[in-house]
Amino acid sequence: MSDVQIIDVSPRDGLQNEPVVVSTEKKKKLIEMLVRSNVKKIEATSFVHPRKVPQMVDAEQVMKQCKEFAGIEFVALIPNLKGFQRAIQANISEVNWVTAATETFNYKNIGMSIDENFAQFKRIVQESRILNMKVCFSIAVSFGCPYEGEVNPAKVISLVERAVEAGADRIGIADTIGIATPKQVKRLLAEVLQVAQSTPIAIHLHDTRGMGLANAYAALEAGVKIFETSASGIGGCPFAPGAAGNLATEDLVYMFERMGVKTEIDFEKLLEAADFAASLTSNQPLGRIRQVEKRGSLR
Amino acid sequence: MSDVQIIDVSPRDGLQNEPVVVSTEKKKKLIEMLVRSNVKKIEATSFVHPRKVPQMVDAEQVMKQCKEFAGIEFVALIPNLKGFQRAIQANISEVNWVTAATETFNYKNIGMSIDENFAQFKRIVQESRILNMKVCFSIAVSFGCPYEGEVNPAKVISLVERAVEAGADRIGIADTIGIATPKQVKRLLAEVLQVAQSTPIAIHLHDTRGMGLANAYAALEAGVKIFETSASGIGGCPFAPGAAGNLATEDLVYMFERMGVKTEIDFEKLLEAADFAASLTSNQPLGRIRQVEKRGSLR
Repeated sequence: MSDVQIIDVSPRDGLQNEPVVVSTEKKKKLIEMLVRSNVKKIEATSFVHPRKVPQMVDAEQVMKQCKEFAGIEFVALIPNLKGFQRAIQANISEVNWVTAATETFNYKNIGMSIDENFAQFKRIVQESRILNMKVCFSIAVSFGCPYEGEVNPAKVISLVERAVEAGADRIGIADTIGIATPKQVKRLLAEVLQVAQSTPIAIHLHDTRGMGLANAYAALEAGVKIFETSASGIGGCPFAPGAAGNLATEDLVYMFERMGVKTEIDFEKLLEAADFAASLTSNQPLGRIRQVEKRGSLR
Repeated sequence: MSDVQIIDVSPRDGLQNEPVVVSTEKKKKLIEMLVRSNVKKIEATSFVHPRKVPQMVDAEQVMKQCKEFAGIEFVALIPNLKGFQRAIQANISEVNWVTAATETFNYKNIGMSIDENFAQFKRIVQESRILNMKVCFSIAVSFGCPYEGEVNPAKVISLVERAVEAGADRIGIADTIGIATPKQVKRLLAEVLQVAQSTPIAIHLHDTRGMGLANAYAALEAGVKIFETSASGIGGCPFAPGAAGNLATEDLVYMFERMGVKTEIDFEKLLEAADFAASLTSNQPLGRIRQVEKRGSLR
């Protein structure tokens, strides 16, 4: 048994910002490599309009390919009701709904107000019950927003309360632009965990300013058990300027394992997956472990 | 008043590993830029044999230049009695003695056993009392050693006890190869602070595996108030393979200030110093903040 659950989001958050569309075949290979490294949960794609995010045009095909991997949980991000309908058509078992903590980001990201967005979320939770689908609720820019600046923690807590009441199966607190400090993470997540009660809480981390691992540690200290990261740190949000760089899955796994926090992930195979992920992107990958010379004993 | 003290070690740890010798003039300029950014304490050079570390051949000249900067504390690293004699000749007020936590590293770094090294330290503390010099005691590879692997915390605690007894004016716990985890840091530093009682404790951080800020946060949580970092993250140890990358001063200042931990450092001027530091090295600088697009409101 692992002590924490790691959700690798590289096929979705990692690739969505890439200028060159990655083939379905390569996405499948990335997913396959992650599965081989024993990552048990993967955010594989998003059902978003291809004009908004051309990289995700093959969401249906990607999810179809995922069905080959038994015992792995796959998640698809959905930004609206249309995305939910596509997810139902694709017969998938878990979707990740996104609402931002700020109105401006919500408009830029989803094109509606937080209240409108939330009303849709309530509808999809109800529908999902009948279809036996899991519905997660992610709160983008929970710590800082590129348009509104610092985010009042009370806004996030209020959204968490509403999401719990609506019946979210998991709630994700996202540091979309990698601006959170460990102090903020520890304080907010401790409160979120209390408010959420039995609803599982995930933290979605970016490493834009090098604080990704510090924030992961702070979240762990607060009691968080679910971490969303991206192989090789590839990624960024197309609607969040300067957000480049998710926290690298391998950096988190390395730190956790060295701390005695079991991930059950095969580190060497994860590094192979990370190398492949990096090869799909045009940016310099941010993961640190891969930049370090191999030195057996301390690995 | 600042909440923490930051000792910038870029002129010493940052440059000592560089293949091309940086001119005294450029070193002075780096120091001047750090002073302008309101860094109050700088490790400026080391009195080490120029055959071992050619970059530090101008230690005397650098320390002489430093005398121009009133109100700033300058430190010089010394590896042995010869270095101490040179420091006395140069009429400097604070030296930093280094002993490693492992015998192998101590031999590779200083060429003697820990006990021999410690006997010399005791002698220099006695001499320094007469000369009104401060003598700090740094423990290299306190968490992990490239030759011996994991380091037993009891070894570090024992050295801290001996250094306190000998009369060290400050004790530095160094993660020379950037291998420490925040869990290790928090545990070890809490114990070190207890053992050290009134002797100030510094932590010297590298960011080799991206854990630098996580470790800084863990040290702060443990009660540490003194942090050794390097502008732009330049640096590494010539006797520690793969140690590349001190924690970047600007990354630490950014995180601390955003956490409400006052550093009293002028961030914009620090970035200028970091850019200059980076320009002196042949490696890709590791600091993250400089890689992030400027976005006013969240800076």
